[in-house]
Amino acid sequence: MLKIGIIGGGQLGRMILQQAANYPVETYVLEKDTDAPSAHLCHSFVPGNITDYEDVFHFGKKVDVLTIEIENVNVEALFALEKEGVKVLPKPKVLQTIKDKGLQKLFFRENAIPTSPFLLLEDKSAICQHLDLLPAVQKLRTGGYDGKGTQILKDTDDLSAAFDAPCVLEKRVDIEKEISIIVARNESGETAIYPPVEMVFDPKLNLVDYLISPADLSPAQNEDAQMLALQVCHAFDSPGVFAVEMFLSKSGELLVNEVAPRVHNSGHQTIEGNVVSQFDMLLRVLQNLPLGSTKITQPALMLNLLGADNSYGEAVYEGLPTILQLEGVSVHLYGKKITKPGRKMGHVTIVGDSQRELLSKAAIVKNALKVRSK
Amino acid sequence: MLKIGIIGGGQLGRMILQQAANYPVETYVLEKDTDAPSAHLCHSFVPGNITDYEDVFHFGKKVDVLTIEIENVNVEALFALEKEGVKVLPKPKVLQTIKDKGLQKLFFRENAIPTSPFLLLEDKSAICQHLDLLPAVQKLRTGGYDGKGTQILKDTDDLSAAFDAPCVLEKRVDIEKEISIIVARNESGETAIYPPVEMVFDPKLNLVDYLISPADLSPAQNEDAQMLALQVCHAFDSPGVFAVEMFLSKSGELLVNEVAPRVHNSGHQTIEGNVVSQFDMLLRVLQNLPLGSTKITQPALMLNLLGADNSYGEAVYEGLPTILQLEGVSVHLYGKKITKPGRKMGHVTIVGDSQRELLSKAAIVKNALKVRSK
Repeated sequence: MLKIGIIGGGQLGRMILQQAANYPVETYVLEKDTDAPSAHLCHSFVPGNITDYEDVFHFGKKVDVLTIEIENVNVEALFALEKEGVKVLPKPKVLQTIKDKGLQKLFFRENAIPTSPFLLLEDKSAICQHLDLLPAVQKLRTGGYDGKGTQILKDTDDLSAAFDAPCVLEKRVDIEKEISIIVARNESGETAIYPPVEMVFDPKLNLVDYLISPADLSPAQNEDAQMLALQVCHAFDSPGVFAVEMFLSKSGELLVNEVAPRVHNSGHQTIEGNVVSQFDMLLRVLQNLPLGSTKITQPALMLNLLGADNSYGEAVYEGLPTILQLEGVSVHLYGKKITKPGRKMGHVTIVGDSQRELLSKAAIVKNALKVRSK
Repeated sequence: MLKIGIIGGGQLGRMILQQAANYPVETYVLEKDTDAPSAHLCHSFVPGNITDYEDVFHFGKKVDVLTIEIENVNVEALFALEKEGVKVLPKPKVLQTIKDKGLQKLFFRENAIPTSPFLLLEDKSAICQHLDLLPAVQKLRTGGYDGKGTQILKDTDDLSAAFDAPCVLEKRVDIEKEISIIVARNESGETAIYPPVEMVFDPKLNLVDYLISPADLSPAQNEDAQMLALQVCHAFDSPGVFAVEMFLSKSGELLVNEVAPRVHNSGHQTIEGNVVSQFDMLLRVLQNLPLGSTKITQPALMLNLLGADNSYGEAVYEGLPTILQLEGVSVHLYGKKITKPGRKMGHVTIVGDSQRELLSKAAIVKNALKVRSK
């Protein structure tokens, strides 16, 4: 049986493993937390630090194909493993580019991928010389995740709170819509593109509030967005599953914001709403199998379930009986023992015939379902 | 977290566990084979013999709710656990009735559930006094599974090959269609009934060849079949998931053939083809959550994948690249290391718009996908 290694043991790994059980593969997980969401769903759980060269290298030597569920891994070890003949998907060079938001922006520029104007700065003091870029978004080049390490600098009043570290300063885009497209490529070079989804953010948490599939775009916008996602995938020139996040600006421009070289929060609704889910897609990529259909079977809405305010400790879930009465509502709880405010504890997918139905059910779910501490 | 115990570690357990990962539950599996399909997908794998009183009793003491994925378990231990306050779903008395095909037939009779005429006989010699029942189906009262322990006795020529053990001798029904209905009930008494599916058998292996959802029935037949399934569920008076297999005779009668008090092969297509799958339904029953919708989202066809003739040994799968090119084809391989002729190694579900499309894809799948030994 093909041995598949996943670096990282979070919820993305968990959903990969739920799907992996349909295929003739043996699964390995590298993760330091023995209570992580993936820990009990794999054939072999290997305790270790995903940022440590030795841990990643020794883990990789155990498997035939290696993938990631988080970017923050030791890339040097992946390069070494690639040299030794272990298949690493996505390729380490892709990961090296993407984990540094500065290199990622430069990559977009070099490959003529439309993106917002930006500067790479060494620290906070350098911002003062580029006040013309304000209002801007400041992103730490490395180490940010789930909205952390990203903030808006509206004007000079905000400069005192700016991150004092190597960063990307991006001209803020006047955003009409935020969309995301999952695109996959296997080793044979076959590609599969999902229809765009639309993301609505919670300004307080800077986390996806809900996501609607399909996005409400004109046929031309739809086509352009899919072509752009494909261009990004070809530029990276690597097998894998990629989430391409874009802005549609108020002036009608499509700009690539960020790419994740892995299954992604913006593809969760594919489990219930598309013929082949993003997780199944990754399994097909890892086995170099045909990619299958990305078609939407039903409109879907996905809500992240975040730890409630002021709740720290062992998680308990309120409202499941209420929401599971609703037709087309599915829950995915990630099995995290400890909740804290804003932590991603699960998600809910709602499928239905009309956007109106989806939104009215989403309101009930948001109101009823809570993760608190004991 | 609620601790759920599953007795048996086969493919049904595997699919229960794939779904269990969406809920806040901790999973335990009792099974002697450490390579079983469920072994690596649970929080705690407990090695033990499911027919042994001590093994089942000690396993049950570890959990809050206990269920089964196979009937052949030690029922005495389940009665003892029930007395000690462990929830056992289905109730042990249901299992006691169902594991003995003789008691099951008597139960149907006592509860006015229509079923074919039958006799309970002690051995082979007793058949000679009841030749008027031929052509008949002879079933061992206990120990049969997957078509084993069941045979047709057409006439007196077949008597020499009859089983010489306690058995049920049933008048053979002139069958128009074989259908199955999954019905669920939670502790609150809420019930959910799936639309009937139609099963087409392979006469050589006596195993489901393919299954079509929904069954091709008149509205009145549909209604009658669902009412009958509900009657069966109420007669058993227990929470659980039940598969009610029925014959529609050529004269238009509905007769209950057998009931399984668990998720069942005839409900596998609910994963892709219905709003809530039978596995999700069982998880909802075990947590006493609302049962959700059993609606068909798309017509589906399910094929069992059996070990190829003359192949004994470590399993290899042929034809995956061919079948995964087809839209709407999903594979579920059970991770069994060893194949042998006729062994259930997996299943394939095909969803599509028309029966014609389903059947033409099924023909390709049957021809291409093979499980052989290395």
